[in-house]
Amino acid sequence: MNTFGRNFRCTTFGESHGKAVGVVVDGCPPNIPLTEADIQPYLDRRRPGKSPLESARQESDRVEILSGTFEGRTTGAPIALVVRNRDVQSGDYDALRDVFRPGHADYTWQAKYGLRDHRGGGRSSGRETLARVAAGAVAVRCLAPCGIAIRGRVVEVHAATDPGAMEEEICAARNAGDSVGGVVEVTAAGCPAGLGDPVFGKLDAAIAGAMMGIGAVKGVELGEGFAAARLFGSEMNDPITADGFTSNHAGGVLGGISTGQEIVVRIAVKPTPSIRRVQQTVDIAGEEREISVEGRHDPCIAPRVVPVAECMLALVILDAMLEQGKYWKWARRADGAGS
Amino acid sequence: MNTFGRNFRCTTFGESHGKAVGVVVDGCPPNIPLTEADIQPYLDRRRPGKSPLESARQESDRVEILSGTFEGRTTGAPIALVVRNRDVQSGDYDALRDVFRPGHADYTWQAKYGLRDHRGGGRSSGRETLARVAAGAVAVRCLAPCGIAIRGRVVEVHAATDPGAMEEEICAARNAGDSVGGVVEVTAAGCPAGLGDPVFGKLDAAIAGAMMGIGAVKGVELGEGFAAARLFGSEMNDPITADGFTSNHAGGVLGGISTGQEIVVRIAVKPTPSIRRVQQTVDIAGEEREISVEGRHDPCIAPRVVPVAECMLALVILDAMLEQGKYWKWARRADGAGS
Amino acid sequence: MNTFGRNFRCTTFGESHGKAVGVVVDGCPPNIPLTEADIQPYLDRRRPGKSPLESARQESDRVEILSGTFEGRTTGAPIALVVRNRDVQSGDYDALRDVFRPGHADYTWQAKYGLRDHRGGGRSSGRETLARVAAGAVAVRCLAPCGIAIRGRVVEVHAATDPGAMEEEICAARNAGDSVGGVVEVTAAGCPAGLGDPVFGKLDAAIAGAMMGIGAVKGVELGEGFAAARLFGSEMNDPITADGFTSNHAGGVLGGISTGQEIVVRIAVKPTPSIRRVQQTVDIAGEEREISVEGRHDPCIAPRVVPVAECMLALVILDAMLEQGKYWKWARRADGAGS
Amino acid sequence: MNTFGRNFRCTTFGESHGKAVGVVVDGCPPNIPLTEADIQPYLDRRRPGKSPLESARQESDRVEILSGTFEGRTTGAPIALVVRNRDVQSGDYDALRDVFRPGHADYTWQAKYGLRDHRGGGRSSGRETLARVAAGAVAVRCLAPCGIAIRGRVVEVHAATDPGAMEEEICAARNAGDSVGGVVEVTAAGCPAGLGDPVFGKLDAAIAGAMMGIGAVKGVELGEGFAAARLFGSEMNDPITADGFTSNHAGGVLGGISTGQEIVVRIAVKPTPSIRRVQQTVDIAGEEREISVEGRHDPCIAPRVVPVAECMLALVILDAMLEQGKYWKWARRADGAGS
Repeated sequence: MNTFGRNFRCTTFGESHGKAVGVVVDGCPPNIPLTEADIQPYLDRRRPGKSPLESARQESDRVEILSGTFEGRTTGAPIALVVRNRDVQSGDYDALRDVFRPGHADYTWQAKYGLRDHRGGGRSSGRETLARVAAGAVAVRCLAPCGIAIRGRVVEVHAATDPGAMEEEICAARNAGDSVGGVVEVTAAGCPAGLGDPVFGKLDAAIAGAMMGIGAVKGVELGEGFAAARLFGSEMNDPITADGFTSNHAGGVLGGISTGQEIVVRIAVKPTPSIRRVQQTVDIAGEEREISVEGRHDPCIAPRVVPVAECMLALVILDAMLEQGKYWKWARRADGAGS
Repeated sequence: MNTFGRNFRCTTFGESHGKAVGVVVDGCPPNIPLTEADIQPYLDRRRPGKSPLESARQESDRVEILSGTFEGRTTGAPIALVVRNRDVQSGDYDALRDVFRPGHADYTWQAKYGLRDHRGGGRSSGRETLARVAAGAVAVRCLAPCGIAIRGRVVEVHAATDPGAMEEEICAARNAGDSVGGVVEVTAAGCPAGLGDPVFGKLDAAIAGAMMGIGAVKGVELGEGFAAARLFGSEMNDPITADGFTSNHAGGVLGGISTGQEIVVRIAVKPTPSIRRVQQTVDIAGEEREISVEGRHDPCIAPRVVPVAECMLALVILDAMLEQGKYWKWARRADGAGS
Repeated sequence: MNTFGRNFRCTTFGESHGKAVGVVVDGCPPNIPLTEADIQPYLDRRRPGKSPLESARQESDRVEILSGTFEGRTTGAPIALVVRNRDVQSGDYDALRDVFRPGHADYTWQAKYGLRDHRGGGRSSGRETLARVAAGAVAVRCLAPCGIAIRGRVVEVHAATDPGAMEEEICAARNAGDSVGGVVEVTAAGCPAGLGDPVFGKLDAAIAGAMMGIGAVKGVELGEGFAAARLFGSEMNDPITADGFTSNHAGGVLGGISTGQEIVVRIAVKPTPSIRRVQQTVDIAGEEREISVEGRHDPCIAPRVVPVAECMLALVILDAMLEQGKYWKWARRADGAGS
Repeated sequence: MNTFGRNFRCTTFGESHGKAVGVVVDGCPPNIPLTEADIQPYLDRRRPGKSPLESARQESDRVEILSGTFEGRTTGAPIALVVRNRDVQSGDYDALRDVFRPGHADYTWQAKYGLRDHRGGGRSSGRETLARVAAGAVAVRCLAPCGIAIRGRVVEVHAATDPGAMEEEICAARNAGDSVGGVVEVTAAGCPAGLGDPVFGKLDAAIAGAMMGIGAVKGVELGEGFAAARLFGSEMNDPITADGFTSNHAGGVLGGISTGQEIVVRIAVKPTPSIRRVQQTVDIAGEEREISVEGRHDPCIAPRVVPVAECMLALVILDAMLEQGKYWKWARRADGAGS
């Protein structure tokens, strides 16, 4: 199950410590301007090692387009994107080979695949998200002609919501050998009304599945989200006037279909499970062990989740647009509005 | 897009005010005991008109199994379940025909399908969930031999968490011609470890998609959920001992794969959008109108969401079990444990 | 795997000797005139017992539309079609319960599902095709506004190609307690050019899969088919003039995409495997037995394959049209041409 | 639609005259020995330029495994296979740019995508089959431990069935500036009984779809195929004895499910449409033109279809085995039988 999407289908491949990671995008509209330069900035944003607060793994992460474009434009044929791996330091992980790191997938992978089967070992790595981001960057490029812009940011870290305070929380956690969680908000502006299909093709259902599928995400909400549980209907309902809705408590989706307002999604990101602080665990023989996870780890993963969440939202929205068969209509309308 | 699931595939049909609603379940394991009596209680729980706090629409909602069973057991062939509609009072809705009810899908359906296209009109009704519940009841029946039990309950209404207080909140809202939201918690006990697949087949992603696809749901979280954003890694990580995990902050899923602990899901349910209190809206001609939605409506939809959420969780878990190809292994193990 | 199609998705259900057989059609274009009267004639053509040359099983086979239409037109919601079974004479089959009939699926079902698992027993029956024909009749109704007409006929029986001679061959076989094979030709006139997608979505590949999936079919060919193996390129290629192609050796498909010419498909139908003549076989205990299959059986199944093949071709073509997203464009063009 | 298969999913990419062609294989069983050396021979067999009777295009066609293997064995993660293009002589085609070659997809692509849209231009090339062959070679490698062997050969060219005579027919056609068709037979020995699923998942339906999807194929048949139309039931039915079937008129599939006998498939391959002999056609302006297709073309494409057909059969059979969830059981049984 390495394929995402029904119309804009992304099949990712590659291991964290193998030759390359990449993705094949099938179903991309033709004639969209696309070169490596459209994709690279998203990979750079996702890349670790950019700040002292982040993991120090160094990867140049240069993407190469192997197929699907001609003279700088997409052709409609499958787009293969490949990033070669370089900074492979598997040695770092040897010490942890036989110990289940708390909060990681080590235990569940062992339960699922058994001892000797490294099946897709490197696939659970955060590095797999590189392929999603590459595909998402193509989706972002396809949404641009329709006037749709995706933006994400960290809106909370350990209860702090002010940027300075959030950075302090991250530093404090790092200095304590610990980590902290956060909340990321992603929005899509400019979406047409009518995206999503009734019953099992709802737009918000697709968004929720895509977001919860990002590693470390434990919650997803649209609009008022969980706060809606504490509202009256008269507070939650968005009144409609001749000029449109006067509020957006719904977060841009009603009955599973986009309203044409901004789509507003928030996701809960758990604290990075890899921490220096000593934790209790067992090894694969079932012996109790204490573990302190050294090495290159972000004390708060939320900032690096931002481009991934943006890209997943772009993938879902583009897929929904293609499902409606109106991509070009919307592109033309946006073009008319812009000129 | 009226099909849910990859292995246990449910295709629902039927309109709120048509002849019947129903579902075809394809991919059900053979030899599972199944009669109408296994399904009917779930439909009864979902049915309106059971208490003064709920909608007064009267439906006997008797399910009939048309195919897929033989001598009281499933055969592996598709199971068709049909419920005939009876209490059709379309007249109630005539007054609202041309007005967009705030908080409802009226506006988005109009934007999507246009004026004259009633496409699937009755499909956005809550009555469609009857078909999901019927299919989910079959899934619940299939999970039982594996020792898996699904349970749901309302855990919060308008910030109240005590059952008595929750009921008071609902009465107060009804008396004010208003409605309130709530939070529903659904759990699955007895799940084997190893459900879910890496990358795009994660168990929590499937759960999130299924839950957000229920009408009126605006948020989904597993385990600590949004509270995880305010925790340190040392608080969030579940320590592992020789006896297993000592806590379940993860809610039973790590890295998208079940841990074998209880799966704990909470969903935010928005207030019923249909309220007597006057709201501002427009009609299909774009003229501003005031609307007061009379008729049979639950002041809090959360209690009726409970069986739907249970059924969706059952569908997702069974689908994941069938994906692993180990259904019978797990059934035999549970059988051995029980005897 | 009881679902056919990607866009016009048909999920069939029901056993030969159960309560009912039926189909749910998801993805039907809205606003197409559709009543039971559009479907019934196809079921009547498929129905046995119409002539002395056919099986004597009597079924009224009345179809009921349970959902998906409103005031005689489709709504775009799933269309559930149900036919109740009546003439259930399971007793006829008791004598054969433990013996593998040569040429039937008895042996392979036993190998696949094992002794005691009747899984979908009645599903391998020719009666399942009733559901396909019902769905196909809906497809035929959807193709009509686009000016597309599907027609089928028996073109060969035991080497005879003249209708009178074919009937003689069938009578002779029946009188000898034997059966004969035949060839059915199905054509689609009025198809637009451009149906089908490169690589794995080719129109002829979909047609071949659909046709070979009909019971008793052992071969499929388009245009010249196997005769193409004996032609030169200069004979096979269809010359193009300003007025279009001057021949149709390709059978309406080039490179997997429709040319706009008539689509011409021929299928090889094997002789009915149920014959009175004594055959050698084994029972489920592996003991050698002789078998003579009495009862209601067509000496040549080809005539009854005709409506099934027509319906499968209609399903494939409509599915391909919906994939292109141009159904309405083609419907309007045909409407303009007709008026 | 560049993905083939439900369980062993192959997504191909790459243009004939772009940077590379390749495929991502998702769903491969883990722990299968696999290196480039397992795949390369299949690419070499498919490669043009091997004999004076074939196209002279020179490609080294070296395959590189980018992911999905570890220490020479598959891991269960997606396997990305890439072949860089080298011998790109697009100039050859310039003369034909605006003319529809009879028998080619030029006309249908124009009808489908319009004048200026080169969408996937190089995708209709025979070179795309390279990616299928690479994926098929992986499937062949997976079938080996189960004792399943796939073999193909040309059995007829222009009515000749003797190898020497077939070669003479090809030479004669080439010398006349013409081309000839042929018939290819592909068999799978060692298949377990029970592959394929009733109704819409039949093994022979999948085989027919896969084979007809190969370029230039106009017909597919199993076992007696079209000859079955001329047989009596008493001739066609395969008698069963205590030692198994005494004949294989069915070609290894009954009721859509494998019998355990050899699977025998024959496909009709049309003459290469590119011929030097002058043909009548039109250009994109609709002007009538005469065309003589010069350049590197096989006078009979059947020999090069052989490895492609073998690979497609391997893909279908492996996919069916994985669908049953018994791959490892069958591998162990074969292992036991072999030792």
